[in-house]
Amino acid sequence: MSIIVQKYGGSSVSNTDKIKTIAQNIITRKERDPNIVVVVSAMGDTTDDYIKLAKDISDSPDKRELDVLMSTGEMIAASLLSMALKANGCDSVSYSAYQLDISTSGSHGKSQIDDIDVKRIEKSLEEGKVVIVTGFQGVNDEGDITTLGRGGSDTSAVALAVKLGGMCEIYTDVDGIYSTDPRKYTTAKKLEEIEYEEMLELASLGAQVMHSRSIELAQKYGIEIYVGLSCGQEKGTYIRGGKDMKLEERVITGLATSDDDISVTIKDFESSNIASLFEDIANKGISVDMISQTAPIEKNISVSFTVPKEDMKECKGIVSKYAPKENIVIDEEITKFSLVGLGMKNTYGVASKVFKIFNENNIGIKLITTSEIRITCAINSSEKQIAIEKIAREFNL
Amino acid sequence: MSIIVQKYGGSSVSNTDKIKTIAQNIITRKERDPNIVVVVSAMGDTTDDYIKLAKDISDSPDKRELDVLMSTGEMIAASLLSMALKANGCDSVSYSAYQLDISTSGSHGKSQIDDIDVKRIEKSLEEGKVVIVTGFQGVNDEGDITTLGRGGSDTSAVALAVKLGGMCEIYTDVDGIYSTDPRKYTTAKKLEEIEYEEMLELASLGAQVMHSRSIELAQKYGIEIYVGLSCGQEKGTYIRGGKDMKLEERVITGLATSDDDISVTIKDFESSNIASLFEDIANKGISVDMISQTAPIEKNISVSFTVPKEDMKECKGIVSKYAPKENIVIDEEITKFSLVGLGMKNTYGVASKVFKIFNENNIGIKLITTSEIRITCAINSSEKQIAIEKIAREFNL
Repeated sequence: MSIIVQKYGGSSVSNTDKIKTIAQNIITRKERDPNIVVVVSAMGDTTDDYIKLAKDISDSPDKRELDVLMSTGEMIAASLLSMALKANGCDSVSYSAYQLDISTSGSHGKSQIDDIDVKRIEKSLEEGKVVIVTGFQGVNDEGDITTLGRGGSDTSAVALAVKLGGMCEIYTDVDGIYSTDPRKYTTAKKLEEIEYEEMLELASLGAQVMHSRSIELAQKYGIEIYVGLSCGQEKGTYIRGGKDMKLEERVITGLATSDDDISVTIKDFESSNIASLFEDIANKGISVDMISQTAPIEKNISVSFTVPKEDMKECKGIVSKYAPKENIVIDEEITKFSLVGLGMKNTYGVASKVFKIFNENNIGIKLITTSEIRITCAINSSEKQIAIEKIAREFNL
Repeated sequence: MSIIVQKYGGSSVSNTDKIKTIAQNIITRKERDPNIVVVVSAMGDTTDDYIKLAKDISDSPDKRELDVLMSTGEMIAASLLSMALKANGCDSVSYSAYQLDISTSGSHGKSQIDDIDVKRIEKSLEEGKVVIVTGFQGVNDEGDITTLGRGGSDTSAVALAVKLGGMCEIYTDVDGIYSTDPRKYTTAKKLEEIEYEEMLELASLGAQVMHSRSIELAQKYGIEIYVGLSCGQEKGTYIRGGKDMKLEERVITGLATSDDDISVTIKDFESSNIASLFEDIANKGISVDMISQTAPIEKNISVSFTVPKEDMKECKGIVSKYAPKENIVIDEEITKFSLVGLGMKNTYGVASKVFKIFNENNIGIKLITTSEIRITCAINSSEKQIAIEKIAREFNL
């Protein structure tokens, strides 16, 4: 049977009226596609409210218990959507991570899905039910609830599409993927389709539309993803593999910025300690993004790297074991500014063009990292807007 | 090992400050009693908020999904309390119904606990942890979450005390069991101790302090229950079996009122249909409380009974299949007024004294039911206050 896995984000289920509207949409869609599985996120600001509650209890709330707390948000949304479907005569059932054996591994708050037992889902679909699944969560080997990290419901949806052999539709409050954030650059263009790899770079760089792990998973198993408005008729964006893409590639497909990180710089750092430093950071489950190092002068180096703002305190603690206070500089005012495009592979001079534009506009570059299809610079947050405008105009985004 | 099972009600955990205070109390108590298991209810008005959400979706929300929704309230409270303990250096772990295999049977919203697997709790206690358990919920044979009915966390706590061989302490916003509701009758007396049977009658009659099934369970297994204030030094009330009780019994131990029911009266009802009527009502999971029937006149009888207000709509539907509209009278303005006391067994004339007082004060009695140790009358809700005052004075409550 052909199965559609839909995912509705928090803004799409932020109140009971929206949930009722979604229920109606699902009922209409079911006439055409009888097998529908729906993944829901927590309602609106629930996640933020929960974090506030937890922070009221403790500055660094226990991560296992935080996951228990967080996981209830999706249970609430799932039960309400299922109620709304049944109230409109459409049989439905909600399932939580425990009921589907969504097995996860990795640390609390950032775990990975290992497997999902879809037997119960398939049985319910055969009985004609719409199946609602709580996104964002799983159960680890100890039998404890874990969460997948912010935006993890996207990954839940793609994982279900993989296991069920279905197609995946992500419904959100934007009507598709744009070449850059339309709130920041009003003439940004909506993309009809985008390659997994490009989307992956955009997602991992802070284009908030999709959880980057969901794209990796979709790419690995060739799952096509549609991204669009919850209740819109407007056409969204397809994320898929190269074979169906248009032949002519654009050099730059997208531009993304992120203010979620801080940079840490250590001066006069003994280079032999660098492996041990990053091992300590990794052991705490902190993901380091950009790393930049200058050539050693008498065994000592300068090293800069970025980590998520939320991990700043913990990261400071680790770094302070390796260097005296006066050698450590923390910069909280950075923006990661990234350009992505498969076309970069075959086009020279993109980086130099970017640096030239930054230079002409007095935008200082603090850190640079690149991949085959991406250039990322850390710049001052205050210079983000002008950088977006100049670069978007130059590359026609 | 000696184990203390504490239960904290919704008003005791209604905000993060209260949760932090409880955490401190538990830590202090743990110095004396190292093995503490804590059952929590949902925070404050969570349950009411959830019912409102569900009613926004549908007038009669699906009961399976309602249970999923409801069960999240206890998960939230449990995770926060565990966070608060850990933040204060006391190792702790929260467990939900799925993690403890709290197996239940019976219908959604009013299920019974069949068993609890306490191995995980015992292991955590051995590791020195305070164990927090979500009250009010379990998992049925289909693997679905069920709830035990309002106040069901009391039953969760007693069931855990049974399985762990511990003592049970119920912490709430009243400082013990009173002979009658102190909010309605200011000179009401607090009881130092009360017999299971008396408490059972009081609880089932609407004295909101305890879930009646919790008392039944405690009586069955001889579990002593202490009821008191969450954070008070004031002495509460012990609920226990007769052997430890004082020798001299009071005739009337308590007085309870409840406005939670309506009465249904059917005139000219064919008596042969009565079994089938009550079977239909029972099949819908509606619990009938008082039943009163007059002697048949040519096979036809008049029958009155009370059901919970929330089941009125469903009950009307059933009754309308048995009698024409003009023969059915629904009375929504009734108060169940009950006197309870083991001493009634051996004392004559309690009923007649009650009826005399009602008569002298022009309080009409609509329905009467009695047990060995209880008299219940349904009266007009408007006459409740005067009835309480007169009866409490007469029986020195």
